[in-house]
Amino acid sequence: MITVYGYSPSGNCHKLRLALTQLGRGYRWVEVDSSAGETRTPAYLAKNPNGKVPIVELGDGRVLAESNAILCWLAEGTPLWPDDAWQRAQALSWLFFEQYSHEPYIAVARFVRGWTPPGSPRRAELPRLRERGHQALAVMERHLRSNPWFTGADYGVADIALSAYTAVAGEGGFELAPYPALRDWLERVARTPGYVPMPAPPAEAAARLALPD
Amino acid sequence: MITVYGYSPSGNCHKLRLALTQLGRGYRWVEVDSSAGETRTPAYLAKNPNGKVPIVELGDGRVLAESNAILCWLAEGTPLWPDDAWQRAQALSWLFFEQYSHEPYIAVARFVRGWTPPGSPRRAELPRLRERGHQALAVMERHLRSNPWFTGADYGVADIALSAYTAVAGEGGFELAPYPALRDWLERVARTPGYVPMPAPPAEAAARLALPD
Repeated sequence: MITVYGYSPSGNCHKLRLALTQLGRGYRWVEVDSSAGETRTPAYLAKNPNGKVPIVELGDGRVLAESNAILCWLAEGTPLWPDDAWQRAQALSWLFFEQYSHEPYIAVARFVRGWTPPGSPRRAELPRLRERGHQALAVMERHLRSNPWFTGADYGVADIALSAYTAVAGEGGFELAPYPALRDWLERVARTPGYVPMPAPPAEAAARLALPD
Repeated sequence: MITVYGYSPSGNCHKLRLALTQLGRGYRWVEVDSSAGETRTPAYLAKNPNGKVPIVELGDGRVLAESNAILCWLAEGTPLWPDDAWQRAQALSWLFFEQYSHEPYIAVARFVRGWTPPGSPRRAELPRLRERGHQALAVMERHLRSNPWFTGADYGVADIALSAYTAVAGEGGFELAPYPALRDWLERVARTPGYVPMPAPPAEAAARLALPD
């Protein structure tokens, strides 16, 4: 049995809950509130010196960090991981796109809106985060105009990784109306067997997310 | 024969030159100066809608983007890619660490110092880039105190990816004296068969990099 250390309203963490559920794998979930400093304690840093969630811990104490690396490890040998080397490479390409060109804007805009107080200086970052986030959404839209998924011919790891924060992009202030192919893809993802949506944010974050910028 | 579209002084691009050289694979290199807008032309965006280097193009026109995905694709079935699933997962974890927690600070600090004019407002980012970059170097140092490489038992993809910008971290203003295990690792990397260092930056960038902040 593996243990996931994760913060439930985090898309990076939700990727693992979704993959594990869809793969029918048992797991133990330990809630670690990264927004309350729980990834910076000595006990947590001993598990992940980089101080981030999620991680998975095996029964023998070995630890694996980085949500997308964990996804690949879980997916190997399952239908979530392409058999074909070129399709695997394309899936990996989208996983790196997600961490470099998508998450730092779309996830961070949501974090700034929901997890920092209304007067926070970080709110000044929102226009730039929106601009870069929309660039990422436009790249996804273009791909989805002629491809149903990001993991080759079928749903898989890259769809899980990219949908986690895209499904809640509205909470970061991203209007998805200009991206019809992307909205269709999100609906296809939500209809995959065993799909589970991200849990609702805690009340204080939810209240902030409901306000305009 | 594959074609690499890359900017030679970019660490992300250098990863591919290094891997291809060490694997003894022929390739064609097309220089694309991302600092001069050459990744934003319609012709380039038709190859990579995300507008970044490097990419590889196959003889039949298929394209693969994202330096670390390309590295994995090149490395599969070679000694640069671990046979063991857990070691592969750890190597992938370091590749994602490199793109999320290392490159955005260590590479960007070097870019700001060398590729923006002395009065650029982006220079105000340097203190934060340094702080985060040193956090990444400290995580690497901790790993290297008890492990010779980042790719499992042997040198491989994660060492190539992490060494590319770490080898020139000094150009970003990072002093490596506090990281003895990391400096030893850089020396081991430089002694691997077929190692090639990153080409020197163009004269204007080199002159800026030689100045204090």
